[in-house]
Amino acid sequence: MKLATLKNGSRDGALVIVSRDLSRCVSAASIAPTLQAALDNWDAVAPQLAALYEQLNAGAAAGAQPFDQAAAHSPLPRAYQWADGSAYINHVELVRRARNAEVPASFYTDPLMYQGGSDSFVGPRDNIYALTEDWGIDLEAEVAVVTGDVKMGATPDEAAQAIRLVMLVNDVSLRNLIPNELAKGFGFFNSKPASAFSPVAVTPDELGAAWMDNKVHLPLAVHLNGQPFGKPNAGEDMTFSFAQLVAHAAQTRELGAGTIIGSGTVSNKQGSLHGSSIANGGVGYCCLAEVRMYETIESGKPQTGFLKFGDTVRIEMNDAAGASIFGAIDQTVAHYRERG
Amino acid sequence: MKLATLKNGSRDGALVIVSRDLSRCVSAASIAPTLQAALDNWDAVAPQLAALYEQLNAGAAAGAQPFDQAAAHSPLPRAYQWADGSAYINHVELVRRARNAEVPASFYTDPLMYQGGSDSFVGPRDNIYALTEDWGIDLEAEVAVVTGDVKMGATPDEAAQAIRLVMLVNDVSLRNLIPNELAKGFGFFNSKPASAFSPVAVTPDELGAAWMDNKVHLPLAVHLNGQPFGKPNAGEDMTFSFAQLVAHAAQTRELGAGTIIGSGTVSNKQGSLHGSSIANGGVGYCCLAEVRMYETIESGKPQTGFLKFGDTVRIEMNDAAGASIFGAIDQTVAHYRERG
Repeated sequence: MKLATLKNGSRDGALVIVSRDLSRCVSAASIAPTLQAALDNWDAVAPQLAALYEQLNAGAAAGAQPFDQAAAHSPLPRAYQWADGSAYINHVELVRRARNAEVPASFYTDPLMYQGGSDSFVGPRDNIYALTEDWGIDLEAEVAVVTGDVKMGATPDEAAQAIRLVMLVNDVSLRNLIPNELAKGFGFFNSKPASAFSPVAVTPDELGAAWMDNKVHLPLAVHLNGQPFGKPNAGEDMTFSFAQLVAHAAQTRELGAGTIIGSGTVSNKQGSLHGSSIANGGVGYCCLAEVRMYETIESGKPQTGFLKFGDTVRIEMNDAAGASIFGAIDQTVAHYRERG
Repeated sequence: MKLATLKNGSRDGALVIVSRDLSRCVSAASIAPTLQAALDNWDAVAPQLAALYEQLNAGAAAGAQPFDQAAAHSPLPRAYQWADGSAYINHVELVRRARNAEVPASFYTDPLMYQGGSDSFVGPRDNIYALTEDWGIDLEAEVAVVTGDVKMGATPDEAAQAIRLVMLVNDVSLRNLIPNELAKGFGFFNSKPASAFSPVAVTPDELGAAWMDNKVHLPLAVHLNGQPFGKPNAGEDMTFSFAQLVAHAAQTRELGAGTIIGSGTVSNKQGSLHGSSIANGGVGYCCLAEVRMYETIESGKPQTGFLKFGDTVRIEMNDAAGASIFGAIDQTVAHYRERG
């Protein structure tokens, strides 16, 4: 089934069920008022939500209305946990090559993961706010899963059973703040402002055969200012599956229902800078930093700049038939003073 | 006023108001069902909570009952954000001295802060669970504040206005996992399992003159296995006030109501290993790592071990008259298989 959260002036929004083709939605208030409430009591409410989803797809749900992606908040407008892996090692390899460093062998067996801020996500069509372009604003297009409760020390198989929903993310990064912040040794904080998630979260079964080995085997389409920028396949070159990422997160602690675990920037292994861009037949990129790393490797320094106020970022994933699965993240970079 | 959350089988517990002397409590359900709900709508509900608090202290609150600290969960059993500073630079200086490294000058002007997991805190009297003692289980006794909404780029003065509540924390750390994890460059994750907070959270006015310059000027009492272990003054040697820590957290993003910001391990500047222990007239320590750093500085290697299954940790703060302000965190280390 497909779920979304409509903005309604509250902090957590209103849970709706969305039709498979994203055209219609219906309130789920009689079952669970918010997505977090549904996740808190998933075993009891999921069958009821699924039944209403079938009615909606059959055109038989009372009170159905058109689904407007622009009226949606992130499925969880705020969450109790957002932890982001870095499962596409190609991305890490490029970072290291750009500074002539080796990738430690452990990186291929022990996932990188950082704890992100989850108190106030922005909506999929909300602006990316910053106080200055000098922060080096970058997109990071990713896939993420939402889990139920996970016990401490869960195996990947047990972790896989706890995956409830899949969605897309724009994990905005402030590249110019990262070097100093990581040098302090405590990880990302100021360099990771609020993320945005796709208008719709879906249960893994909605992905059909594309959900295999706890990975999503479909291209992730990224547009910058209306131009194709990336289309790497999220199922390829993912060194750690979502089951492994969730299990990593649970190694020393329980995970509460509604935990969001991200894949890290999707990145496929490609050849040169020239051959990697979409214009030249490559699959492109899911963040500007990756282009800049190719540029650094080939010419000694980056040429492409980061995002400027007014730039737009669109992130979407279509099924084999070309239909949008999650709806589109579509954001404009803006100065925070415009927040009003 | 003083607030607590009683365990009631739900994920968020039930909000109660606690009398100043911690002896009685009364349900706040008619005003706000949970502490998060109260924080979400603080300006409207705080005056009502305060009125009920006055009735309770006057012995005039209908439905009042004895307050049992052991029945309390952490005030926020789960939160949308938990970010922990490291404001007591003495702690950082000792870490560096133990490995003959300098403290970077920027550490005195730019706070260290890490993003912690907030999806499932444990209660103040719940066990500290681990799968093995080999993780190097340590306590970290700290003070924390809970904020309202904070805008991006808030000044310390603006941040100070958003401080709603003060509480104590045991920020459990897995010391033997930290070196490898920090070497990966993404900060703490597996090395920081679930934290526990004091049974009671209080508004800053409850601290009277001890709340000054956005710091808590009182000793933090730590007992290990029933023996005094630490009593440093939380108002001394705090390089960054809570206003500065909150402002740091908000530099590049908004903070949502219910954000918890920690002080880091409380630590006062002292002389030698011998003179720093309580037995020898010092103020002792708020974590085992600190004793081990003194030992390393003086004898080349640590002698004191980390916590073992069965060990107990008690963290409390008394006012000038000797009365407990927040109630006591009192935890026993146990194997996770006992979780049941």
